[in-house]
Amino acid sequence: MNKLYVVGIGPGAYEKMTIEAAEALKNSDVIIGYTVYVDLVKDHFPGKEFLTTPMKKEVERCVMAFVEAMKGKTVAMICSGDAGVYGMAGLMYEVGTGYPDVELSIIPGVTAATGGAAVLGAPLIHDFCLISLSDLLTPWEKIERRLTDAAHGDFVVCLYNPSSKKRHDYLMKACDLMMKYKAEDTVCGIVGNIGREGEEMKVMTLKELRETTVDMFTTVFVGNSQTKEIGGRMVTPRGYKNV
Amino acid sequence: MNKLYVVGIGPGAYEKMTIEAAEALKNSDVIIGYTVYVDLVKDHFPGKEFLTTPMKKEVERCVMAFVEAMKGKTVAMICSGDAGVYGMAGLMYEVGTGYPDVELSIIPGVTAATGGAAVLGAPLIHDFCLISLSDLLTPWEKIERRLTDAAHGDFVVCLYNPSSKKRHDYLMKACDLMMKYKAEDTVCGIVGNIGREGEEMKVMTLKELRETTVDMFTTVFVGNSQTKEIGGRMVTPRGYKNV
Repeated sequence: MNKLYVVGIGPGAYEKMTIEAAEALKNSDVIIGYTVYVDLVKDHFPGKEFLTTPMKKEVERCVMAFVEAMKGKTVAMICSGDAGVYGMAGLMYEVGTGYPDVELSIIPGVTAATGGAAVLGAPLIHDFCLISLSDLLTPWEKIERRLTDAAHGDFVVCLYNPSSKKRHDYLMKACDLMMKYKAEDTVCGIVGNIGREGEEMKVMTLKELRETTVDMFTTVFVGNSQTKEIGGRMVTPRGYKNV
Repeated sequence: MNKLYVVGIGPGAYEKMTIEAAEALKNSDVIIGYTVYVDLVKDHFPGKEFLTTPMKKEVERCVMAFVEAMKGKTVAMICSGDAGVYGMAGLMYEVGTGYPDVELSIIPGVTAATGGAAVLGAPLIHDFCLISLSDLLTPWEKIERRLTDAAHGDFVVCLYNPSSKKRHDYLMKACDLMMKYKAEDTVCGIVGNIGREGEEMKVMTLKELRETTVDMFTTVFVGNSQTKEIGGRMVTPRGYKNV
C-alpha cells in the first residue's frame, strides 16, 4: 500500500519537531505543504522533492499529495503545529475516500496552544478550550456561543486566528463576550511567533487584552478564575483545592 | 543561573518526543520524574542520574528538582505528554518562588489529546475542550458544569482521566450530562496506551460510549455535531460550511 504521512512539524523551529516527524520526512520522497511551512523545513531535508500550494488551496494540496502517493512515492504532507488541530488531517481523510489504495499515517506535533503555553509559563494546566476566531468556515454566531459557554464554564481559553485584516475587532468582541462571566482582571497572555524568530510574550489582564492589537501569528490565552501571575509568567493551578 | 528544564516527553514512545526534549535530557545531569515515566526514557539516556518519587508526591518531586538544581546541576523534570497540560509546569512555577536563583525552561510535548487524535483519525480538527474527570483537586460540580457547557457549545470534547477504581461510573455520568445537548449517535472514540505497547482505538456512538468501561490509560473523544466516521476513523470537518 502506498504510504502518505500527514505530519505536524510543530511551531516552527526544527528542534520543536518530534523525532518521529523528522524520521517521516527523512523517509519521504516528496514533501508537500503551504509555501511558508515548506520553507521552514527545506534546509533540514536536502534532496527531497518539495511541492507547495498557496493558502486557501487546501483541497488541491490534498489531491496533489494523493496523486504523488499513487505514483508509488512516499509522501509527507506537512502542517505547522499539529496536523489534527485546525490542520489538514481531517481534509486528508475526506479527500482520501477517493484513493482507497493510499494508507494515511498521522504524525502528531506540538500545537500552538501547548507551544505558546510553554513560553508564557503554565496557563493550560487545567481544563481548557481551543477556539478559532476565524469565521471563514464557521458562522460567527457559533463562535460567539462557544466563547460564552467557555467563559461560563470557567475554562482557560486559547484563541487561534485571533485577528486578520478583515477581522481586526474580533479579539475585542471575544473579550466582551467572555467578560460576561470572566472578571476584568482575569490573567491573560499573548505569544507571537512561537518557536520562530521574533518570539515574544506578554502577560496582561482581560481588560488590557481587550485593548490590545494582535496579528495572525499571535496565540491568545485567557485564564480561568484561579490563574495567576507568578514572576511575569501566566500560571494556572492544578485545581480548586489547596494542595 | 541554574537551569531547570520541565520536559514533556510525549505519549510514551521515545520517537514521539521532540528533538528539543531529547536534547534537554541529553544536556541534563539529573532526570527526575514519576517512576513510570523515568522507566520510559531511562534506556535512551545512559549515564544520567535518575531520581523518582511515587504518584501523589508531586510537591516533593518539585522540591527535589530545585534542590538538585541549587547544587549546580542541570536538571530535567519529566512529565508524560505535555508538561503544561495537567502536568508539572504550573506547580514548578509555584514551588519555584522559593528558589529565585533557578531559571525554569518549559519544553512542550505531544499531549494525549493530539497523540490520541492521530491514532483515531482527525477528531480535533475544529474547536475543542479538554476536561479531566478527576475530582481529586476539582469539585465534581465544576466538572459537571464544564461538561454541560462544552456540550451546549457543540465543542469536540476530549476527556482525560476518564476512570479510576474509585470513579468507575464517571464516564457514564459525563455521557449523560453531554447527552443533554449532544445526540446519542454523536461519533466518539477511545484510545488506550497511546504511543505505547498495546495501543488500541475504537470508534463508537455516544450511546455506546456511555456503556463502555475504560481504564485510566484511556483517552476519550466525543465529537461535535459534524463529526463523522470515515473508514473506521473519527473525523471532524474544518467547519460548518461546505468546502
